[in-house]
Amino acid sequence: MKIYDVENFPNPLRVRIALAEKNATSNVEFIAVDLMNGEHRTDAFLAKNPLGAVPVLELDDGTFISECSAIIEYIDTEFAGDSLTGTTAKERAIISMMQKRAESTVLDAVATYFHHATDGLGPVLETYQNKEWGNIQGEKARQGLVYFNDVLGNSQFVAGDVFSVADITLFAGLVFAGFAQIAIPSELTHLVAWQENVAKRPSVAG
Amino acid sequence: MKIYDVENFPNPLRVRIALAEKNATSNVEFIAVDLMNGEHRTDAFLAKNPLGAVPVLELDDGTFISECSAIIEYIDTEFAGDSLTGTTAKERAIISMMQKRAESTVLDAVATYFHHATDGLGPVLETYQNKEWGNIQGEKARQGLVYFNDVLGNSQFVAGDVFSVADITLFAGLVFAGFAQIAIPSELTHLVAWQENVAKRPSVAG
Ligand SMILES: N[C@@H](CCC(=O)N[C@@H](CS)C(=O)NCC(=O)O)C(=O)O
Ligand SMILES: N[C@@H](CCC(=O)N[C@@H](CS)C(=O)NCC(=O)O)C(=O)O
Repeated sequence: MKIYDVENFPNPLRVRIALAEKNATSNVEFIAVDLMNGEHRTDAFLAKNPLGAVPVLELDDGTFISECSAIIEYIDTEFAGDSLTGTTAKERAIISMMQKRAESTVLDAVATYFHHATDGLGPVLETYQNKEWGNIQGEKARQGLVYFNDVLGNSQFVAGDVFSVADITLFAGLVFAGFAQIAIPSELTHLVAWQENVAKRPSVAG
Repeated sequence: MKIYDVENFPNPLRVRIALAEKNATSNVEFIAVDLMNGEHRTDAFLAKNPLGAVPVLELDDGTFISECSAIIEYIDTEFAGDSLTGTTAKERAIISMMQKRAESTVLDAVATYFHHATDGLGPVLETYQNKEWGNIQGEKARQGLVYFNDVLGNSQFVAGDVFSVADITLFAGLVFAGFAQIAIPSELTHLVAWQENVAKRPSVAG
């Protein structure tokens, strides 16, 4: 299988961490997308993902899968190792809910802040900005951090006792927050401790 | 199990269609949330879903699950009948991707248009509006309709030959579009034919 992505970008990072957790990185050929020069908006790339975003997984039969949540679920099923998406129906529902919550209240909110309220990827790529909306989403992200700090005061990981795709999404959200210069307040001690803990995992530390 | 929701609202509709597809509606006790009077923003409701939105599923052990995608995956696993989320890893990935795409480019875009560029649910509930952003999202939704018309020109359902949760999300998006007075252009013939077809399913027609 192939993955079209940009190394070190937050969404691609989610899939790379998931692959590393499953010891499956070497099964994938990575193809760099020249996002800074707009390759993701060419017809050739839009044929792979009409939403014009990375990462995209290409299966051996030529099927293209985008959206990190879908890609990671595929990886989780195809490769052996501890499940990232849960085994019982209840575990899977909790992980799916918390993953979505980390996406909407942190990762995607930070992304909207970055693309709308800062220079983002620069004037060529940021063709439309709504600064007020960007700042509202930055505020939403800050509240999201407070929410997850509370969650992590009550459980070791985002969706319970076990590391899951919900942790991966929140971790990528914090990486993006750092990049967008949204500081993680040091009084969010549970969140900070969890972040340090996740950063030490072989899938992240390398 | 219990579901806290508002009958006829677009997101609750997703879960109600999924339950009906699985012939499982009678297994659920529905509890009406007085959303128009702000019950979803009370501490009691936020304890069930901190994002303050319906629907919320309560399992018999008291666990609360929000986000339609998570609730429907749970329902799909717990009840017999044709799968709404796919069986092979590849089918599941395609359905998950298309479900997310229907959410982000139609249902959620229409919702943002409705809450920001129209009177929405009225001045008491719409405490902050960004009309420009709402209109941008309305435009995104119109493009989303064109995209799904193309998809439905090539396959019977949104994620292939089989009715799935991706169809449910898009259908709810079109219901919401109607409510928000975003017209479905009649030249989108594949989309219109698919909508008529889905509307006739017993899970929708009743
Ligand atoms: N929801 C998508 C998000 C993908 C996404 O937004 N990726 C960013 C890179 S981190 C991108 O490609 N952005 C392109 C752009 O902003 O033009 C997913 O889960 O994959
Ligand atoms: N992504 C959520 C969306 C839920 C949602 O936004 N529900 C609407 C009703 S259709 C709501 O509760 N809105 C409350 C509000 O706008 O204040 C899901 O999948 O359940």
